[in-house]
Amino acid sequence: MGAGSWGTTFAKVLGDAAASHGAHRTIRVWGRSPEVVADINAHRNAKYLDAIELPGSISASTDPAEVLAEAQLVVLAVPAQSLRDQLLLWRGHIPDAAIVMSLMKGLEIGTDKRMSEVIADVASIPAERIAVLSGPNLALEIARCEPTASVVACSDPEVAHWIAEACTAPYFRPYMSTDVVGVEIGGIVKNVIALAVGICEGKSMGDNTKATVITRGLAETTRLAVALGGDPQTMAGLAGLGDLVATCSSKLSRNHTAGSLLGQGLSVEEVGLRMTQVAEGIKSAAAVHELAQRLGVDMPITAAVVAVLKGRLPVDQLEPLLLARQLKSEGD
Amino acid sequence: MGAGSWGTTFAKVLGDAAASHGAHRTIRVWGRSPEVVADINAHRNAKYLDAIELPGSISASTDPAEVLAEAQLVVLAVPAQSLRDQLLLWRGHIPDAAIVMSLMKGLEIGTDKRMSEVIADVASIPAERIAVLSGPNLALEIARCEPTASVVACSDPEVAHWIAEACTAPYFRPYMSTDVVGVEIGGIVKNVIALAVGICEGKSMGDNTKATVITRGLAETTRLAVALGGDPQTMAGLAGLGDLVATCSSKLSRNHTAGSLLGQGLSVEEVGLRMTQVAEGIKSAAAVHELAQRLGVDMPITAAVVAVLKGRLPVDQLEPLLLARQLKSEGD
Repeated sequence: MGAGSWGTTFAKVLGDAAASHGAHRTIRVWGRSPEVVADINAHRNAKYLDAIELPGSISASTDPAEVLAEAQLVVLAVPAQSLRDQLLLWRGHIPDAAIVMSLMKGLEIGTDKRMSEVIADVASIPAERIAVLSGPNLALEIARCEPTASVVACSDPEVAHWIAEACTAPYFRPYMSTDVVGVEIGGIVKNVIALAVGICEGKSMGDNTKATVITRGLAETTRLAVALGGDPQTMAGLAGLGDLVATCSSKLSRNHTAGSLLGQGLSVEEVGLRMTQVAEGIKSAAAVHELAQRLGVDMPITAAVVAVLKGRLPVDQLEPLLLARQLKSEGD
Repeated sequence: MGAGSWGTTFAKVLGDAAASHGAHRTIRVWGRSPEVVADINAHRNAKYLDAIELPGSISASTDPAEVLAEAQLVVLAVPAQSLRDQLLLWRGHIPDAAIVMSLMKGLEIGTDKRMSEVIADVASIPAERIAVLSGPNLALEIARCEPTASVVACSDPEVAHWIAEACTAPYFRPYMSTDVVGVEIGGIVKNVIALAVGICEGKSMGDNTKATVITRGLAETTRLAVALGGDPQTMAGLAGLGDLVATCSSKLSRNHTAGSLLGQGLSVEEVGLRMTQVAEGIKSAAAVHELAQRLGVDMPITAAVVAVLKGRLPVDQLEPLLLARQLKSEGD
């Protein structure tokens, strides 16, 4: 459900995974745009994935009822802030036994809910049928079959294993976890930290500074995950550190790019006009900050990014915030 | 002791730190080369630090006795594999109460000892007077006064605090730790992981792959540190994750550059000829691997790098090693 770069790429992973085992599999993609859907039916998605060819097992439609009929695995890949409204339209068509998996990385504005919570809320699906997938997964690299690892999490380890088997392709290796909270928080907050690193880059700061922001950014992400019941080990793994490093290194990352434009002095509105796809971190940052405040978790980098986004902190004043504390032990 | 890029830069940090507090401080640099020493006495080190101007409080000499006389803090910054021989010449000149701090990141070939252990061995200095400093510290960025954080570790927290105060400059912020082992292991192994990431880059692999190598590389570094009595939290901090990310991102890193040349198909000998300064990871890798085997610690990335360096594994065969394992939980 969702025909953007990541939704389409994951459909390709599922198709290539089945083909590599000689298995037959039907993959149906829902897209909002008739042009994109027609393109996918011609085995491409030129708008989001350049000239990459899609497997023959993939078809697409603008009709959610047709796409969801008899689905065993429903994969959700729409913009995070639109999920609730979409699910209200889709929930009646999701088969009773289907597993529902989120590829999305965002926190819902207003409710501060993770995507798995929105799914449980709106579609009344029990936790053991809700999964999430996250990791160092820049879509275009995966679409090009460059080797990638990821983490699939579900409270039921057998479900996580079933999904992992279904999406193991020659170039795509999923690991399994039961830490749904940790995997989701890693994916959500890294977009906010990537904005901070992007701002540093836009201001031509060096790799020492960026590495410090990444390190302290992961520390505050871990504090939030633990406060929500997540496992700190998840944050040291692919869905935490791995995803954060990939996003902060890549020229393909929208959040990183958006941060860089902010660092060069553009306003949030100007950044929005320059970009074709949403930088989710810009939307989720305020929700992450609100959630952290509610839980009493100290997240200074997130707080600084939110202040920049709201126009309350000029980007020139971010840098001293990194170093302006008393001498202390690192863990304090 | 040592007038390379990092030794000279740290002398500048000590000079700028004193100046920023209005304090008087004498900083003497020992260098092997009369040309470099003369240049430092003219307040530059053109060979290693381009046109950067050094504080007036720094002087240099090729005579270790002159440099070490009445020193309160002795900072060691020579190539790791030369430390033992140098210390044999210097130990008689180190004042009895002096604190000795290592800036070096390497494991001694043959003994598998960390630099703090070599210092204790050769100069018979007690642990509470031996410190180490490590972090995301690309020397040239610090020399340019770009904001940087670091970790200073000593088993005696008061000594760590004294050093941290002495080197706090407007652009240089040291944190304190008592985990000498963790801080050293982070700095040593990151050079080996940076070679692996460099190889991936030399082979034009994507950011997903590189982020996976960084994540799993930090995991194996942590296993080694813990086996040696280090604290896993140190690995999640600036001397672990921070240093690894800075090194793996930077065009300034020698180990990263060396790995990239290996990835392009050059032999170890050809890489050596292309580079002006030592890539310590090439020397330490085998010692790290040997230490890990002795302790029964699984370090697959280090093992692969050692196999490449010894010519036993073509770089083309590194990539499948990353993904060729059974489906499993991430922590296993």
